[in-house]
Amino acid sequence: MDKSSPNLIESLVEHLSWLPSVGKKSAQRLAYFLLSNDASKVEQFAQTLLKARRSIRPCSRCGNFTELELCSICSNVRRNSELLCVVEKPYDILAFEKSSGFSGTYHVLGGCISPLDGIAPQDLNLNSLFTRVDNGARELILALNTTSEGEATVTYIRGKLQGKSVKLTRLARGIPIGSELNYVDELTMQRALEERVLLE
Amino acid sequence: MDKSSPNLIESLVEHLSWLPSVGKKSAQRLAYFLLSNDASKVEQFAQTLLKARRSIRPCSRCGNFTELELCSICSNVRRNSELLCVVEKPYDILAFEKSSGFSGTYHVLGGCISPLDGIAPQDLNLNSLFTRVDNGARELILALNTTSEGEATVTYIRGKLQGKSVKLTRLARGIPIGSELNYVDELTMQRALEERVLLE
Repeated sequence: MDKSSPNLIESLVEHLSWLPSVGKKSAQRLAYFLLSNDASKVEQFAQTLLKARRSIRPCSRCGNFTELELCSICSNVRRNSELLCVVEKPYDILAFEKSSGFSGTYHVLGGCISPLDGIAPQDLNLNSLFTRVDNGARELILALNTTSEGEATVTYIRGKLQGKSVKLTRLARGIPIGSELNYVDELTMQRALEERVLLE
Repeated sequence: MDKSSPNLIESLVEHLSWLPSVGKKSAQRLAYFLLSNDASKVEQFAQTLLKARRSIRPCSRCGNFTELELCSICSNVRRNSELLCVVEKPYDILAFEKSSGFSGTYHVLGGCISPLDGIAPQDLNLNSLFTRVDNGARELILALNTTSEGEATVTYIRGKLQGKSVKLTRLARGIPIGSELNYVDELTMQRALEERVLLE
């Protein structure tokens, strides 16, 4: 571009391509969409983004996103606060809430132990998790990703909680409901065979 | 959700799903990405969006996006202002500029004539196009989409310019460069046959 002034369109495209799974071309398309559309809608969008980023923070108990001191799940008295589903990110909570099969509460670690990325146990919300165990949590469902970092984090938590009366569980692994056997990957199939269940 | 206060996350997700090709699920993923990331980066993004939407407007000559009175193409003296490529949207200009095979200028109509959508000739930047013809444009490349609306607009422009000395052209149609014949759609193949070119 042969312009001396800073190019706002290019700057907007650059910001948009920072979003996950938005490449340069999609970013251009989004930028032109935003510039072509109703200015008041774009204004509202930007203001909502600013307001959300400024006022949404981690729930002081579980680390989920909230505008208040406690998130909507922690402040719900019908939820079982002695059953904790331990996840990496607030986004993971959505998957459980969608299935509506879980009436416990959550604890967001904020990631997994990963020496390669410089993430040590003290960088995660682990102390608050151990405090919740001391305060009466009876079961932790360790719903971390099945990566080596996830496994390392599970091992660390198990070590720290040895001797305590809290029950540690993980999600069942196996064939997804409704999937065709032909489409199941090898590792899942292997696990499903190993962990086969006796028919009553 | 069992919260009485307005839910900012949901509002952010709703705004994000307004973007083209962003569904509910992608919007959730984007929202959680924006809430998890560096606040100052998100702030900058929102401010750039606001600034861009407020200060970018149509070029007073061609209708392309610009922060100034004239866009970078119209104000470039090396571009041929007597050769106009007529497009529907500012976004279409990108495709031509990328190929760098065009040294003329543009004219953005802002859409096509479409009685079904209530878009009449006077809703488009047609008068300014005719003024540019009167002021010395020698050729208009009508690079509109090959929809019935595009064709209707071409017909309208031809009618209005009848008797004037301006040359009207359209883009060549045929087999895309580098494509395998087997993958070319039937209509394109038919056109490519009809408009076959004599080898010299």
